[in-house]
Amino acid sequence: MSQRVRISLDAMGGDHGPSTVVPGAAIAREHHPETTFLMFGDEAILAPMVAAEPRLAGAVEIRHTSVSVGMDEKPSQAVRTGRGKSSMWKAIQAVRDGEAEAAVSAGNTGALMAMSKICLKTMAHIERPAIACLWPTVRGESVVLDVGATIGTDAAHLVDMALMGAAMARIVFDLERPTVGLLNVGTEEMKGNEAVKEAARLLREADLPTLRYHGFVEGTDLGRGTTDVVVTEGFTGNIALKTAEGTAKQIATYLRSVMSRTLMARIGYLFARGAFEALREKMNPSRANGGVFLGLEGIVIKSHGSEDAHGFAAAIDLATDMARHDLMRTIRDMLEATPAAASA
Amino acid sequence: MSQRVRISLDAMGGDHGPSTVVPGAAIAREHHPETTFLMFGDEAILAPMVAAEPRLAGAVEIRHTSVSVGMDEKPSQAVRTGRGKSSMWKAIQAVRDGEAEAAVSAGNTGALMAMSKICLKTMAHIERPAIACLWPTVRGESVVLDVGATIGTDAAHLVDMALMGAAMARIVFDLERPTVGLLNVGTEEMKGNEAVKEAARLLREADLPTLRYHGFVEGTDLGRGTTDVVVTEGFTGNIALKTAEGTAKQIATYLRSVMSRTLMARIGYLFARGAFEALREKMNPSRANGGVFLGLEGIVIKSHGSEDAHGFAAAIDLATDMARHDLMRTIRDMLEATPAAASA
Repeated sequence: MSQRVRISLDAMGGDHGPSTVVPGAAIAREHHPETTFLMFGDEAILAPMVAAEPRLAGAVEIRHTSVSVGMDEKPSQAVRTGRGKSSMWKAIQAVRDGEAEAAVSAGNTGALMAMSKICLKTMAHIERPAIACLWPTVRGESVVLDVGATIGTDAAHLVDMALMGAAMARIVFDLERPTVGLLNVGTEEMKGNEAVKEAARLLREADLPTLRYHGFVEGTDLGRGTTDVVVTEGFTGNIALKTAEGTAKQIATYLRSVMSRTLMARIGYLFARGAFEALREKMNPSRANGGVFLGLEGIVIKSHGSEDAHGFAAAIDLATDMARHDLMRTIRDMLEATPAAASA
Repeated sequence: MSQRVRISLDAMGGDHGPSTVVPGAAIAREHHPETTFLMFGDEAILAPMVAAEPRLAGAVEIRHTSVSVGMDEKPSQAVRTGRGKSSMWKAIQAVRDGEAEAAVSAGNTGALMAMSKICLKTMAHIERPAIACLWPTVRGESVVLDVGATIGTDAAHLVDMALMGAAMARIVFDLERPTVGLLNVGTEEMKGNEAVKEAARLLREADLPTLRYHGFVEGTDLGRGTTDVVVTEGFTGNIALKTAEGTAKQIATYLRSVMSRTLMARIGYLFARGAFEALREKMNPSRANGGVFLGLEGIVIKSHGSEDAHGFAAAIDLATDMARHDLMRTIRDMLEATPAAASA
């Protein structure tokens, strides 16, 4: 497909701001030459950086903003000071106003969600938004949500998330009827809290044409890729995601330590250097960077604040994918194909 | 210390029953020659196995039971059929009756907890029991609880768990004032649900002499070993634990795959074989096997159902350690040193 897509970028967000966003956009443009950008931020900084980047020639429109949202600002404070004028708000507003098909920001997650809710509004029939990520598995990737949009849940919210996650999986994995699992402490029917048990009953009985409900899955199933979509409440999902990141770092530390301990290990490392590079690439979290905000009237992607340009480019790629395949319409179609009983 | 300790064993529990329990006891006895065992199970099976094991000579008393609890039985059903007569119940009862200082079972967790609560009772001033595990970190190990005893929590329960986890950390790590963190979705004060926020306030204000409250920790802090103790609700804790296990397995799969892909990698593997052995040992979950039931009037340790004899021996070692250092008294001392305000 060579459909043109315009992405709005919060150029001041993240730990590194424009020095990640501008080269990130350039890398993403290599992958999708028909993507163009609306960049919001300090023009005096952005203009020379963009001009110096041949891959961005003719592809960027810069809109000056002098306000940016701090990484540690409380969401309420960020909305007070940044509403209507910050680079983050303007990037979201461009989606609302139809100037861009999706917005990407590496800024403060809480502020980005708060502004997105105010500016774009929640979709009809969706109670609360969720953040979905692509989780690397031994079989490929799974869509996992919610990884931190809201704390606490009920059965209806879990069912909504199953539908929205399946819509995203349909786009990303090109599947007609993705499999969906509910994250729980065991796979037996009697396990878990009331919300997961009730959501399981609703999903099983609804037997939807748009997704195949697999049943409960456990923490070990995440890395295994047992289902295309894994649904859980935001507190638990966020902790699971960060626990997996931490475990990967921990093992990388062990590996470095054992491979430098003896002369034999160091020689072995030299021979197997290519294999270690391949492993590093596999374990590189920036390959799957990008939290997709689901349940809003517009596409917003959160890039990890500490990512480099390649990570930011991955978030732009995800935004391009979601925009091209019309995430909003896919979700709406999923909701329409769902009997009211299941999401009520 | 050469204090004699007697451990009661549910010899029929776990995926492999006596074929893991008997050699596991023999291995544990190499570590602690003054430990003796009360073994509950099918005498016709156990007697010849014990007799054939020179390391267990004179160290085992077998008590015949013909009932054993199935790995998939519901806790309520297990209690109905196994109360008073199963190998699991008898092992716990031996602790209640003062015949053993601690019980170890690789059986069904739900049944073991249900029977332990009925037989031993919950400690005074402790609302609900918890299961604590030793979590391997880059700095060593941390005590993490609750990994699945109860679903849902409130601030008082989280504070109780902080005290009980600190008591266990005092014994295992030999620390006067272990550091304690509350697992949350961020480290800022405003983050999280009401229970963690309120527990944080209570722990901060109480400023206990028996533990140092560190603040909130995130999923990434688990592998980092930021605090000696990490406290969380059972649903989240169980999912975090299994997510970490799954991630470790996933990376091991990647590593095997990249190390066999090219000839150079295979040669490298041969040179670095010792290093890979060391890594495997580091990542071996059985080194830290054993869930400690906290908050009961007696020591019960749950071994993972699928562990081998070395894993079961690790659970026995943990039981021996808890018994020698009198876990119950350490917890009681912690509770007494705590102003009522903090745990009320």
